[in-house]
Amino acid sequence: MRIVLDAMGGDYAPAAVVEGGVRAAREYGVEVILVGRREAVEPELARHDTAGLQVPIVHASEVIEMDEHPALVAKSKRDSSMAVGMQMVKRGEADAFVTMGNSGGALAVALLHLGRLRGIKRPALSSVFPTVKGPAFLIDLGANADCKPEYLLQFAIMGSVYAERVLGILHPRVGIVSNGEEEGKGNFLVRDTTPLLKACGLNFVGNVEGKDVPAGLADVIVTDGFTGNVIVKTSEGVAAMILEVLEREIKARPLAMAGALLAKPAFRAAKRTLDYTEYGGAALLGVNGIVIVGHGRSNAKAVASAIRVAKVAVEGKVLDAIRAGIEATGSAEDEEERN
Amino acid sequence: MRIVLDAMGGDYAPAAVVEGGVRAAREYGVEVILVGRREAVEPELARHDTAGLQVPIVHASEVIEMDEHPALVAKSKRDSSMAVGMQMVKRGEADAFVTMGNSGGALAVALLHLGRLRGIKRPALSSVFPTVKGPAFLIDLGANADCKPEYLLQFAIMGSVYAERVLGILHPRVGIVSNGEEEGKGNFLVRDTTPLLKACGLNFVGNVEGKDVPAGLADVIVTDGFTGNVIVKTSEGVAAMILEVLEREIKARPLAMAGALLAKPAFRAAKRTLDYTEYGGAALLGVNGIVIVGHGRSNAKAVASAIRVAKVAVEGKVLDAIRAGIEATGSAEDEEERN
Repeated sequence: MRIVLDAMGGDYAPAAVVEGGVRAAREYGVEVILVGRREAVEPELARHDTAGLQVPIVHASEVIEMDEHPALVAKSKRDSSMAVGMQMVKRGEADAFVTMGNSGGALAVALLHLGRLRGIKRPALSSVFPTVKGPAFLIDLGANADCKPEYLLQFAIMGSVYAERVLGILHPRVGIVSNGEEEGKGNFLVRDTTPLLKACGLNFVGNVEGKDVPAGLADVIVTDGFTGNVIVKTSEGVAAMILEVLEREIKARPLAMAGALLAKPAFRAAKRTLDYTEYGGAALLGVNGIVIVGHGRSNAKAVASAIRVAKVAVEGKVLDAIRAGIEATGSAEDEEERN
Repeated sequence: MRIVLDAMGGDYAPAAVVEGGVRAAREYGVEVILVGRREAVEPELARHDTAGLQVPIVHASEVIEMDEHPALVAKSKRDSSMAVGMQMVKRGEADAFVTMGNSGGALAVALLHLGRLRGIKRPALSSVFPTVKGPAFLIDLGANADCKPEYLLQFAIMGSVYAERVLGILHPRVGIVSNGEEEGKGNFLVRDTTPLLKACGLNFVGNVEGKDVPAGLADVIVTDGFTGNVIVKTSEGVAAMILEVLEREIKARPLAMAGALLAKPAFRAAKRTLDYTEYGGAALLGVNGIVIVGHGRSNAKAVASAIRVAKVAVEGKVLDAIRAGIEATGSAEDEEERN
């Protein structure tokens, strides 16, 4: 299996990304194609022992930065590492594309170079979300700020396929985010989507509230990209706030400081459970190729983890399963696969 | 000052509510009128020393339960403690109404018996939200799942007044929740509301992301009721998840258990900082009367705190200030104050 890795994407690129790529090539037995500026990538690669591994470099002269406008940059930077990498997937020269870069940029480049899967109205950004009962899958996280019921139905289908094939959750419970548990609670979008989700043959469990997401009451959490983004960002913010307040209070008390030192391994373990990066990043679903977008702050381990996720997605034939799911519900558009 | 307290509302009513009412009467020197079933309230009141305090009971034969449908129950239970209490405010027999009960029910009853403030299109539920920099104020929390830009503008005005008059924040920074910090990011609602907020004369600081809310980047956080509900519920859920995971990991390690014991005062202090109930509950803004809705799980202390908030709101002439703010921006409707 060949996986293209965007060597230029992410806060710690290219060093941590190249290191993660080498690690993944060794641990998962895949070929990892590093795409990026050869002059930047080559010296990083030279630091590692790559004997027996397949870690070729493919040159791309441009880089899509984290703060660049997705749609504009996708069109202007035709020789970006993202564009070159995704074109390799498109031509069948690689099986999947992995980046730690600008997720909006990845979406725009994917739409331009890979196109949508047949029948998909809107691709979506999705990610694993830690819950007390293990990982859940959240879709959409920001690709589509304004949605229609048909989009959410397709998100549910894609998320369900991904949860089953990549996360290994059988008959995943699908919930829709709402401002109340009871059916009938919700904004117009939620209320109009509910009948579609009930009829589509998925394991639909109804409305989930914000508090139900971390409680693990559903495996696939469907929402519009605006709300999904708010959920993920609020969670990040609340976790940071709790840790900051806790630290402040502990530091103000010498005895508590001593106690916190003793409890440190437990804190570290808890942090690991709650850490997104452990789960290997987000997936761009609905485009005509496997695209995994890791967290910008990914270290080498998280990069390797994202590559592992890409491998599982390829092996699980996620694209075929999404195509089949979309066809089965008749929610496909009457048009050819976009390119 | 006379404050009506719904003795029947909340998970620990009437016991904790009556206790909180007596405490508030003593600590804040206000008259607290207990409204509810006399046969339930009287024995609770008899447990307390009320010498020198003004804590009369007003009978109301019905109770709006936590799980009842707001609009239906507002109309069917005409003699509920909420209805009787708000009518007293309407008739000028009391200055404010405080309940720990069903917030949707309180809104519906307020619309029926108090009506809207002149010019207000949609009343909103709002609440203080803990941040690392102290309390912020979030509006709307669920009263209006689908909003128009004009509603959000009025939420901003009402929230700004409340933050200034009740929370004591001068020139409060007003932010609108969005899925990105940069202007132009957002769904249609956010993008259409932004020009109104820029032009209205408030201290508008632009978009805030979910993570910016607990970080305290704005004092007044404006959003639609769907998103506001998701923010509050997600925060609750994430906090609970972090504590659950932390507890699990600590309990698995004897040394960490010992450490956690030493650190306990710090944990308790952190919990206090992060505890909503310390801040005295939510406000129902835009109705023609001061209505404070405390958390359903409020203990006596939280009940007293909610009464304190009501007192500050009355003293701060919040209703007059909202009326003036709405008139100044010309966002009022051309209609008479609804009744």
